[in-house]
Amino acid sequence: MRYAVVGTGEVGRTLGGTLVELGHEVRLGSRTQGNPAGMKWAESGGAAASTGTFADAAAFGEVVVNAVGGRVALAALEAAGADNLDGKVLIDVSNPMAFEDGQLRLSPVESVSVGEQIQRAFPHARVVKTLDTVNCQVMVNPGLVPDGHQVFVCGEDVGAKEQVRALLGEFGRPADRVIDLGGIRAARAVEMLLPLWLSLYQHIGHAEFNLEVRRAR
Amino acid sequence: MRYAVVGTGEVGRTLGGTLVELGHEVRLGSRTQGNPAGMKWAESGGAAASTGTFADAAAFGEVVVNAVGGRVALAALEAAGADNLDGKVLIDVSNPMAFEDGQLRLSPVESVSVGEQIQRAFPHARVVKTLDTVNCQVMVNPGLVPDGHQVFVCGEDVGAKEQVRALLGEFGRPADRVIDLGGIRAARAVEMLLPLWLSLYQHIGHAEFNLEVRRAR
Repeated sequence: MRYAVVGTGEVGRTLGGTLVELGHEVRLGSRTQGNPAGMKWAESGGAAASTGTFADAAAFGEVVVNAVGGRVALAALEAAGADNLDGKVLIDVSNPMAFEDGQLRLSPVESVSVGEQIQRAFPHARVVKTLDTVNCQVMVNPGLVPDGHQVFVCGEDVGAKEQVRALLGEFGRPADRVIDLGGIRAARAVEMLLPLWLSLYQHIGHAEFNLEVRRAR
Repeated sequence: MRYAVVGTGEVGRTLGGTLVELGHEVRLGSRTQGNPAGMKWAESGGAAASTGTFADAAAFGEVVVNAVGGRVALAALEAAGADNLDGKVLIDVSNPMAFEDGQLRLSPVESVSVGEQIQRAFPHARVVKTLDTVNCQVMVNPGLVPDGHQVFVCGEDVGAKEQVRALLGEFGRPADRVIDLGGIRAARAVEMLLPLWLSLYQHIGHAEFNLEVRRAR
């Protein structure tokens, strides 16, 4: 499969690298041509790894992964081009936390989510929100954390969610450890987990943790 | 120990009933004298169970539990009276979700929390936020959900948090399944879990579930 990864930060490079290791072709997209992080990533990634602009990547990918920060996701995807997203599965792993006056704050929050903003802006893309509740190493290597923990998917397109569940399976996550929360509105719920994630990160002292939903029946 | 429980709803009656079963004296407080739910609860609760106004209850309790909805917590505690809260452990189990135009919405959110609002309004109370992330049956009977899940405490007063951890132990929760997230600001994080709780409730179909934090080390 050909994947576009929008964003050359740690999340994008980690996801892109794992996708290459799994045998996919990956193009990492950045705001400008010749982004140093993207170039370095592509050089070390072999023949299946390439880099280009957001639009180059999105045109290349059969599936597009949004791996830029939630606050700049719409701008990056506009640059990628709606035509390059139409009909494609668009996996949004972003969260909209960022520093404001020295504190990490979440915005947008509660009344809307990045996942919904993307789906509204690109109505012909098949948006699936997932993985934003874990560190990028746990995204691609769930075995870093002891068995049982889960991640969430939500989105309007059931087929797209099943495709994402299969991709998460390639990453090593059993299908029954992916919880489908329904439509894209549930992106609000998973994005609002970020402040708890941050509190737990401070409490635990590292990022190799995740949540398990335990239930009576 | 003498407990005040502010609120005669399901959460207040459940917590109050369990506290009586554990051998404590409990006064359930309501907005007005003679609240039918409070009267009925007190009648069936034996000699250790009584009811009265918010102020009656708060004056009686050595520890005060806020069990009204988060959006009316400040008004209820104002009615309880600052003098009746001074120096006491004030356990806030509330969450600020409520229906708006047919949808459950969270307010306040992100920039502040009910826990912080209470601590600011009553600076001499020793506020501890806890248990708002689980259904009231799971609050008092953690064994309803299979082993390993946790709840959170946060607040400015370390001694108050230890007292709450001991109370949670009386409810049957091992001390190592209570995660201390630090100061009262973390109330934002645990209150923002409510939309996920609601999504999971819809997904699972009942309220007997909770989260376990799993970590690599």
